[in-house]
Amino acid sequence: FKNPKIAVIPGDGIGKEVMPEGVRALEAANRKFNLGMQFDHFDFASCDYYLKHGKMMPDDWFDTLMKYDAIFFGAVGMPDILPDHVSLWGSLIQFRRGFDQYVNLRPVRLLPGVPCPLANRKPGDIDFFVVRENTEGEYSSVGGKMFPDTDREIVIQESVFTRQGVDRILHYAFDLAQSRPKKHLTSATKSNGIAITMPYWDERVEAMSKKFADVRADKYHIDILAAHFVMNPDRFDVVVASNLFGDILSDLGPACTGTIAVAPSGSINPEGKFPSLFEPVHGSAPDIFGKMIANPIGQIWSGAMMLDHLGYPEAGKAIFTAIEKVLTSGPGNAPLTPDLGGSAKTDDLGKAIAAAI
Amino acid sequence: FKNPKIAVIPGDGIGKEVMPEGVRALEAANRKFNLGMQFDHFDFASCDYYLKHGKMMPDDWFDTLMKYDAIFFGAVGMPDILPDHVSLWGSLIQFRRGFDQYVNLRPVRLLPGVPCPLANRKPGDIDFFVVRENTEGEYSSVGGKMFPDTDREIVIQESVFTRQGVDRILHYAFDLAQSRPKKHLTSATKSNGIAITMPYWDERVEAMSKKFADVRADKYHIDILAAHFVMNPDRFDVVVASNLFGDILSDLGPACTGTIAVAPSGSINPEGKFPSLFEPVHGSAPDIFGKMIANPIGQIWSGAMMLDHLGYPEAGKAIFTAIEKVLTSGPGNAPLTPDLGGSAKTDDLGKAIAAAI
Ligand SMILES: CC(C)[C@H](C(=O)O)[C@@H](O)C(=O)O
Ligand SMILES: CC(C)[C@H](C(=O)O)[C@@H](O)C(=O)O
Repeated sequence: FKNPKIAVIPGDGIGKEVMPEGVRALEAANRKFNLGMQFDHFDFASCDYYLKHGKMMPDDWFDTLMKYDAIFFGAVGMPDILPDHVSLWGSLIQFRRGFDQYVNLRPVRLLPGVPCPLANRKPGDIDFFVVRENTEGEYSSVGGKMFPDTDREIVIQESVFTRQGVDRILHYAFDLAQSRPKKHLTSATKSNGIAITMPYWDERVEAMSKKFADVRADKYHIDILAAHFVMNPDRFDVVVASNLFGDILSDLGPACTGTIAVAPSGSINPEGKFPSLFEPVHGSAPDIFGKMIANPIGQIWSGAMMLDHLGYPEAGKAIFTAIEKVLTSGPGNAPLTPDLGGSAKTDDLGKAIAAAI
Repeated sequence: FKNPKIAVIPGDGIGKEVMPEGVRALEAANRKFNLGMQFDHFDFASCDYYLKHGKMMPDDWFDTLMKYDAIFFGAVGMPDILPDHVSLWGSLIQFRRGFDQYVNLRPVRLLPGVPCPLANRKPGDIDFFVVRENTEGEYSSVGGKMFPDTDREIVIQESVFTRQGVDRILHYAFDLAQSRPKKHLTSATKSNGIAITMPYWDERVEAMSKKFADVRADKYHIDILAAHFVMNPDRFDVVVASNLFGDILSDLGPACTGTIAVAPSGSINPEGKFPSLFEPVHGSAPDIFGKMIANPIGQIWSGAMMLDHLGYPEAGKAIFTAIEKVLTSGPGNAPLTPDLGGSAKTDDLGKAIAAAI
């Protein structure tokens, strides 16, 4: 991607507060590495937009965003204004499906300077990826209600797993595992309880593992897997999971490393046919919105992931190194936000990281 | 329940090793409190039985077990012999549905003497219940495969939520919350992603909360809820969840308190029309089976829960107190199993607890 064009969408809540810091860090890398990166800002995919227009996005959102090499996203959702399923299915989930961003990639890493809720773990101990299927599975829109408003009321929703959908995410995950020193893949399943789709998932994992003979593959049921994230987080290298299980594990992983406000994610179309999207794992956090205390590192780190994806790993690395540097200085020497033990504002921390790039 | 009749089913793997200790503790309470409790042992609902008979249970299992006041269960599943979905759906899940055990009740409690993986938490800090729906929801048997063995292969499974099924578990959970000092209920949802069944779940929670005005009710999406189990486990009192979410949370909760080998559970038919079932949260653990190092406390504590349910709370309390007493003695003074830092065998620990009753 030469002179990459970036669509910037802050969205709702603290998305609007952390986004300027994400862009600030990218601009710093842009100058330093001479990337010729260009940014355009959009106000859709937000509840404000919905209040004005009666929908989350303009009808031509697809064509508009197709002109960009990547989407840099904040967060969406203001449940007091609009139910989450309306705001999310009208924006983020449209992107994931419309742009076939079938990989959701989420690093779980214990960073220096971040308070960890687990006892006796130190930076370096925990370093793995959650690879989440991002277009199908449990997040279906098929189903409905029968006998509404009566005692016989019944609501059905279908989970849909396709051979193509399952195989391509497994392929991506095995490939990633193969590229890492430990070459270890863990599959999240629940074939003992969810007895139709999950045994199928296991079957496809087994078939794929034959094509990656040098990758050690194992599987855990999601209940005990979640338990091992707490008990033995050092056991994992690449964890592959369905849409729902990946969603749960990629919040739980960062929680175990204390980095829920810090964790980045990419919704990726690996073939590059469509723009990929990069956003922090955290949501719009209406409860702290307006105080400018949100930690911008999730947004900034997502920018670093975006640069990796666009073919500028050196620039991505420079951002990540700046984050680490500021984090390890400690609240006495760096302007850290309250969640990191400091009392700085969102933009103070953002400026410090940009300066360190 | 006078002179309660108990069906004892050890099942598979370490279920066979911990069950004698569960019975030993119950016998001790039986003598001490003069309960007149009777035990009958059954070998079905096990993979051994399957190997002999080609099915997990005899055809008359329902009538056989209906003669009992409760079922005391070990664990089931030997994936090397039989896929888990065959062994589980042929046994445990039959019980839950056949005997309409629609409540799965699982305490999460930080106990003295149990090593806790979370930093800076002490006994008393964490003490809540997971109330899991146990008969419907995501654990459905409806669905199937189309275009098998082709690239177009597609597998569908339906989640089924009924008004009756949702309301009765919510009622149980609100009721439990109301009986506790904090009167606080947390509902696990995922209405932003699972956009048909979960908004319905939220709707029913809201309706039920109007009937329990003195209970403070809130909700979290399952991803961030799992994160809070690690970050803020002291925030919870009663957590109510669907079948799948409850399954995940009730392994994750005990993992956060270090008690996964220790945690008990009850599959309860609150109306007492059918026998309820009590079993440890842990599974059959084929990897450690045969070494007699399994911790029997999950089984023993399940026995205490069973006594509560049968109307003998004093006897249940005596067992629980004996467990606490042995746990706090430390590995120097009590025969603790390896997971608790000792080197004792399953039956050594079981005998010590029975002696303390
Ligand atoms: C073995 C399995 C089917 C079962 C479940 O998922 O219900 C178990 O994990 C449990 O929690 O009792
Ligand atoms: C907001 C929600 C629909 C979304 C999801 O569940 O995918 C979020 O939790 C995420 O992980 O990106």
